[in-house]
Amino acid sequence: MSRFSEPQDPDFQRINASLSFDQRLWPHDIAQSKAHAKMLASCSIISDAEAEELRRGLDAVAAELAAGSFPFAPGDEDIHMAIERRLTELVGAVGGKLHTARSRNDQVATDVAMFVRDTATETGRALTDLVSIVLETAERHQDWPMPGYTHLQRAQPVYLAHHLLAYAWMFLRDRSRFAQVVDACAYLPLGAGALAGVNFATDRGLVAAELGFAAPVPNSIDAVSNRDFAVDYLAAAATCAMHLSRLGGELVLWSTSEFGFCELSDAWTSGSSIMPQKKNPDAAELLRAKAPRITAHHSALLGVLHGLPLTYNKDLQEDKEHLFDTADTLTGCLAAARGMLASITFDRNRLTAAAADEMIAAVDIADLLVRAGVPFREAHGVVAGLVRTALDSGRRLSELSDDELAASSAMLDAAEFRELLAADSWLESKISQGGTASGRVGEQLAAVRAALSGA
Amino acid sequence: MSRFSEPQDPDFQRINASLSFDQRLWPHDIAQSKAHAKMLASCSIISDAEAEELRRGLDAVAAELAAGSFPFAPGDEDIHMAIERRLTELVGAVGGKLHTARSRNDQVATDVAMFVRDTATETGRALTDLVSIVLETAERHQDWPMPGYTHLQRAQPVYLAHHLLAYAWMFLRDRSRFAQVVDACAYLPLGAGALAGVNFATDRGLVAAELGFAAPVPNSIDAVSNRDFAVDYLAAAATCAMHLSRLGGELVLWSTSEFGFCELSDAWTSGSSIMPQKKNPDAAELLRAKAPRITAHHSALLGVLHGLPLTYNKDLQEDKEHLFDTADTLTGCLAAARGMLASITFDRNRLTAAAADEMIAAVDIADLLVRAGVPFREAHGVVAGLVRTALDSGRRLSELSDDELAASSAMLDAAEFRELLAADSWLESKISQGGTASGRVGEQLAAVRAALSGA
Amino acid sequence: MSRFSEPQDPDFQRINASLSFDQRLWPHDIAQSKAHAKMLASCSIISDAEAEELRRGLDAVAAELAAGSFPFAPGDEDIHMAIERRLTELVGAVGGKLHTARSRNDQVATDVAMFVRDTATETGRALTDLVSIVLETAERHQDWPMPGYTHLQRAQPVYLAHHLLAYAWMFLRDRSRFAQVVDACAYLPLGAGALAGVNFATDRGLVAAELGFAAPVPNSIDAVSNRDFAVDYLAAAATCAMHLSRLGGELVLWSTSEFGFCELSDAWTSGSSIMPQKKNPDAAELLRAKAPRITAHHSALLGVLHGLPLTYNKDLQEDKEHLFDTADTLTGCLAAARGMLASITFDRNRLTAAAADEMIAAVDIADLLVRAGVPFREAHGVVAGLVRTALDSGRRLSELSDDELAASSAMLDAAEFRELLAADSWLESKISQGGTASGRVGEQLAAVRAALSGA
Amino acid sequence: MSRFSEPQDPDFQRINASLSFDQRLWPHDIAQSKAHAKMLASCSIISDAEAEELRRGLDAVAAELAAGSFPFAPGDEDIHMAIERRLTELVGAVGGKLHTARSRNDQVATDVAMFVRDTATETGRALTDLVSIVLETAERHQDWPMPGYTHLQRAQPVYLAHHLLAYAWMFLRDRSRFAQVVDACAYLPLGAGALAGVNFATDRGLVAAELGFAAPVPNSIDAVSNRDFAVDYLAAAATCAMHLSRLGGELVLWSTSEFGFCELSDAWTSGSSIMPQKKNPDAAELLRAKAPRITAHHSALLGVLHGLPLTYNKDLQEDKEHLFDTADTLTGCLAAARGMLASITFDRNRLTAAAADEMIAAVDIADLLVRAGVPFREAHGVVAGLVRTALDSGRRLSELSDDELAASSAMLDAAEFRELLAADSWLESKISQGGTASGRVGEQLAAVRAALSGA
Repeated sequence: MSRFSEPQDPDFQRINASLSFDQRLWPHDIAQSKAHAKMLASCSIISDAEAEELRRGLDAVAAELAAGSFPFAPGDEDIHMAIERRLTELVGAVGGKLHTARSRNDQVATDVAMFVRDTATETGRALTDLVSIVLETAERHQDWPMPGYTHLQRAQPVYLAHHLLAYAWMFLRDRSRFAQVVDACAYLPLGAGALAGVNFATDRGLVAAELGFAAPVPNSIDAVSNRDFAVDYLAAAATCAMHLSRLGGELVLWSTSEFGFCELSDAWTSGSSIMPQKKNPDAAELLRAKAPRITAHHSALLGVLHGLPLTYNKDLQEDKEHLFDTADTLTGCLAAARGMLASITFDRNRLTAAAADEMIAAVDIADLLVRAGVPFREAHGVVAGLVRTALDSGRRLSELSDDELAASSAMLDAAEFRELLAADSWLESKISQGGTASGRVGEQLAAVRAALSGA
Repeated sequence: MSRFSEPQDPDFQRINASLSFDQRLWPHDIAQSKAHAKMLASCSIISDAEAEELRRGLDAVAAELAAGSFPFAPGDEDIHMAIERRLTELVGAVGGKLHTARSRNDQVATDVAMFVRDTATETGRALTDLVSIVLETAERHQDWPMPGYTHLQRAQPVYLAHHLLAYAWMFLRDRSRFAQVVDACAYLPLGAGALAGVNFATDRGLVAAELGFAAPVPNSIDAVSNRDFAVDYLAAAATCAMHLSRLGGELVLWSTSEFGFCELSDAWTSGSSIMPQKKNPDAAELLRAKAPRITAHHSALLGVLHGLPLTYNKDLQEDKEHLFDTADTLTGCLAAARGMLASITFDRNRLTAAAADEMIAAVDIADLLVRAGVPFREAHGVVAGLVRTALDSGRRLSELSDDELAASSAMLDAAEFRELLAADSWLESKISQGGTASGRVGEQLAAVRAALSGA
Repeated sequence: MSRFSEPQDPDFQRINASLSFDQRLWPHDIAQSKAHAKMLASCSIISDAEAEELRRGLDAVAAELAAGSFPFAPGDEDIHMAIERRLTELVGAVGGKLHTARSRNDQVATDVAMFVRDTATETGRALTDLVSIVLETAERHQDWPMPGYTHLQRAQPVYLAHHLLAYAWMFLRDRSRFAQVVDACAYLPLGAGALAGVNFATDRGLVAAELGFAAPVPNSIDAVSNRDFAVDYLAAAATCAMHLSRLGGELVLWSTSEFGFCELSDAWTSGSSIMPQKKNPDAAELLRAKAPRITAHHSALLGVLHGLPLTYNKDLQEDKEHLFDTADTLTGCLAAARGMLASITFDRNRLTAAAADEMIAAVDIADLLVRAGVPFREAHGVVAGLVRTALDSGRRLSELSDDELAASSAMLDAAEFRELLAADSWLESKISQGGTASGRVGEQLAAVRAALSGA
Repeated sequence: MSRFSEPQDPDFQRINASLSFDQRLWPHDIAQSKAHAKMLASCSIISDAEAEELRRGLDAVAAELAAGSFPFAPGDEDIHMAIERRLTELVGAVGGKLHTARSRNDQVATDVAMFVRDTATETGRALTDLVSIVLETAERHQDWPMPGYTHLQRAQPVYLAHHLLAYAWMFLRDRSRFAQVVDACAYLPLGAGALAGVNFATDRGLVAAELGFAAPVPNSIDAVSNRDFAVDYLAAAATCAMHLSRLGGELVLWSTSEFGFCELSDAWTSGSSIMPQKKNPDAAELLRAKAPRITAHHSALLGVLHGLPLTYNKDLQEDKEHLFDTADTLTGCLAAARGMLASITFDRNRLTAAAADEMIAAVDIADLLVRAGVPFREAHGVVAGLVRTALDSGRRLSELSDDELAASSAMLDAAEFRELLAADSWLESKISQGGTASGRVGEQLAAVRAALSGA
């Protein structure tokens, strides 16, 4: 019997049903139902025999779902209803007892929390793998010079390892962020009922322990209204995707004829339908392109929650697709980043030639003057003047005459100046902590290695 | 001297200059410059006397800025340049030595990290204050019944305290999130130079300690490219603003003639320019309305960083306005939430009347049947039938006849049925952990109190 | 032969392949290929016999796709390649001639433009249907009073028809916006080749005419780089979804026990898994909930295009899923809005009672004074004082004494005052153009009817 | 007198007041008040003498505002109240009559509509100016070859004019979009009153005509609830900003040492605080960086409107800052784009050298085979094989031997092959409409010129 006298409109069912996407929650739904049944028996709300029947039935349902043989029915609105319906078909009326002392509201919140927890754990693992690859790639290119850029202008030379390690630190931060997301999923919604708690002396702690939660959510209204953990996952994913987009963007750039710093492997590139010579960095472009999508998922979920009255509202059904697409997209992007870096080839000659641009020694020349007692601002002006003289006359800095040097500043020693430009010591001069000098890069490699082994 | 032969276009200066907004960073800029000067002397890069001159000069500049008497000059592009220019005016050429072994790139990143750290700390404190007010408000309304809603339909009665405490838990989660943001700001960018580290044997650890950072950023490229901490702040703020928008939305709703659950104080409402009877919940509406703005700031900064090549790019200048407006908006919203709750009046009669709606006892009736051995799904159907019979005939549930009750289910005891509807025990029956029964609400009050005192 | 020596990594294929979603473009792809083949023959680039073979082959492929019997192959990366592969299987080597004088870049852009054009046309039609339902609903409730709200506070009474017609105007604006989107799709990308045009004397005008475009895109680079029409569609959809969310939000509100203004039909509501009495406005909630998702799709596509160098980049593949999900979501929402309004029941008693709240006549009392020569600002103050006196003493305005009235203003005629409060003329007094007086509402009904019949 | 017994909380006033930003609406507010007063007199609601007094008073207020001498008072919550207060100070009690037959709700909507209309008109004009500069720049570089890119890989050569003109078409589309925004502002909200219309026989058509609107908004509820025109402006601005970000991104790229295609003028670049050699394309970077901010403004306003009940809610106050910042940002960006293009220098040698890369003739070689009767797909494979042979052996295509050519395909004529590679005819072969051949580019120049002169 139902309080409704009219069937649902098919158009309503189409917009209302969530089965097409929420069915991927089934492993979590089965697990929580088994824990719930165990608790109901432990609290004498159902008998041990009933619990056992439910457990066996749920295992049978799970087997069908895992095998792809689960018989979905036209009326199955969501995976929760589908499982309960099938369970009752398999075990009879006792199936109807499973929903005692819980509601779909706390049930769904629990499934989603479990999904987010497991996915965030997975993402953390994938990040560890990615950092390993970044580390290996850095280790293979420890003493390869390349230009460091600011404003995409050559600024100062760095070692390729140093540049690559910047990504290692980003991804390690991402990993901590996903660890925080796992923590945000530590509280069990189940047992909150529709919103107010339930009329039974349940043991939510038992269910929490069974399912790997730290404790029950302390407020039943919050339990069914809250999706912070989903928002947190999307936020962490958006930042991670942004980092990946920076990596993707650089790989695209470095793969151009103009930069020519690297070549992606054939396995991670594709051709053109019309231009036979093309080798296109599609994977790197997609790495770049996916970030706005994940940012949008995050914004969208916040938008759904905006101004929403407590407690459960149907609007919350919108959490799932944003989560699922984000998880899948991020998984694909992390695999792509890993795959591209593992098989990339850098061009030492192109990198070295670009890093040897005399102009990027300008700050070192200024520092010569500083050591001679010239205030930095003044030294900066002197060197800027030399740069302008050189550019205006189409010469390199090392081609300036001694007279020109002397005219620029009494403190500029022409010999030191020429020696500095001749040396390839610009990189090794960056000796400050975190700098690009070899020793400092070595410290970083060790630190990242330690972070990984401590994972 | 400069490498440029032509002055900047005024239109360029307009779009390029950041002084109008970045001047609020001055306290951080002064503090870091003092720490930097101290370190330069400690490392013998400048003399102690020079460091002392710089310190005194910086104090003088700070005094001018604090007093609003700082003489800005037309060419001051940003606060960093303005301070250095003024410093040099005050202390002479030694002012030019301050920029030794640092760059504007690491300087700006440091200022922003300090701003975010201090702001996140402040926001955390404001959240503690807000939770205190929520707690007090809950304590004042411990045994006031009200309807709990799902789908904005009356679902089950709860105590007002229970509903309010849901917000306490949200804001406590927000507080942890801002604590994580503070941790994300624990690494010092300064000393990374333009991008590659500097040519001097500096002591970044000293500067870090001086400024309250845990350690220097371990990679100089990451130090100047990274704005994760800003993104983290905006993400935490977006979630917090979303929570506030739910509170604002409920206050608007509860203030309607139709709900009539509460009245906001005169101090937090306003009138109409045309309708003399109006008392408008403007502050509650603004609480609701501000969330999308903060979400947008978060998306915008991620958008700026999207695909951006390392290291520093001018695009990063876009971090500041998003941060500042978010900080100001959130501060205003937290104050508004606090102020409204501290002075709100609830209407016990309206709340009680709404909570006494017999329909919301339906699940308790179903539970009567469950205790008699009826599977929950079947019990649900029985009660749904009773509801429909009552609605169709325009009667209340308690007006159904014994025959009608008997016809619905052999297991339904009419006496128990009538007793249950007569009792006001529906709330106290929600005895599960986190439920709305008084004892459980009492546990929550204690838990929130403990969280606050542990703060 | 290929320029690649290594097969693609399966992880790369997973992220790179678009077949799973772009296969819905097949009708457009077939249509454009037929038009392209016809043009190639017309320009003597292929023979008439070849064109005829291609046409027959394409018809056969289309038949398979329509029947669901198309044999997809593992290597089918996208629908374009799948169709060409199958075509070649069916017609032999001549299949390889179809791609003469075009590229996948212009081909994809053309498919997407055709999809957007057709979808926008469809959406326009669905909006016309929705406005018809709004109009009919308004016509059925022409003289039903209800409170108009500002700040969700009762402000002034209006006719329900008047309130509903506000939505008619929103949806009519949406319809024009989609008409503009159709116009934005009027230019044919095909024939631009990869980016530079093609080496053949093609006739792009012929293809344009064949496929219903106004003219070819005038610049081949723009042809393959541009996705403005997709952005335009998403922008129009976002605004439309926002309008629908306002309607959804009001239906949720009006369906509460507290407002009680309407009841949605059983066909557009659902029950609770646990609370047998519940009738939940799920469809209305979803109408509200879907808007942020569409806004997010719009932002995401703009994010993808942000800073993207010309011409085609793989990033552009991200256009499709945003478009498809938006189209499907919007279609579902428009159907839901239509279905709910077509079957909704309003409660005349509840509406009338709410509209009879004396307080909402306050502005009419002020206008009494204005007519007596009192400046509006002063009149506003007089009435505000009366409101406060009434509220403070728990009386209605009509219960104030003659002395109290006289004390408030010498210009206030007590008889007129009482007459005004007694009358139900407040609605009919709003005689200004666009106001709620019956005559004015009648003008609106006629205007909307005219807009529809002119459609 | 007021219905409130307690003053507003200062924290409330801070969050509630809009004067700090809405004061820029004053010219619109004055204009609408003058038109409103004129209408009130014309309809005999006030006397002609009163209207004249109001007009003179408003002129005096406007003069103060224009001169910056307007005396703002502490209680001025918004510009509308400030003006009315000041007016009443200047002209006495008659000032209080101005607000007859209008409300702040319709007044604000009118100001905003006027602002959007004027701003969109301005933006359209700025776009015309920008297209003129693009056109001139294209005309100056009509026969300068450069590589066209797909996936940022050199693909096919194009003329620089052709590439630049792609932007002209984008900006012309933007201009139409802003013209549509102007149309969206053609309906006058004023006269709708608070929401329901007014009690006076006003003449809204007169006010509309006076202020340049086509007609009054036909529904008073819609008049005060609607902000579509603001959303439309933000949507058009977001697309325009995205186009500008693509231009900005390309200018940054082309300014690198690696591309070296152009040099921005000194007037539009800046130096480094530490690296004396740097010439940074800050303006181009900002052009790129500003787009996400405008997209965010659009999303934020849609977020504010999401699910918002009719009619006016305080949330609508959030429209203004998003609009104002967007208008200012876009104005700055358009000026920057214009300034940079007007003063940019391209490097013909670098462009030509890059365009002469033999690899980008590959598709022309394939077309040779197609003309000889080889299906395109097969021809593509033949050339891909040649490319691979060349790359594997470190040779250019023209260095392949006759035997190698013969082995690749019997249809490949070695003489034609060598002639094709030697010729610089690759650009001129793109003769299709919209292609890069000179004649086609000439057609485009004429078309853009025509679009401009028709503006």
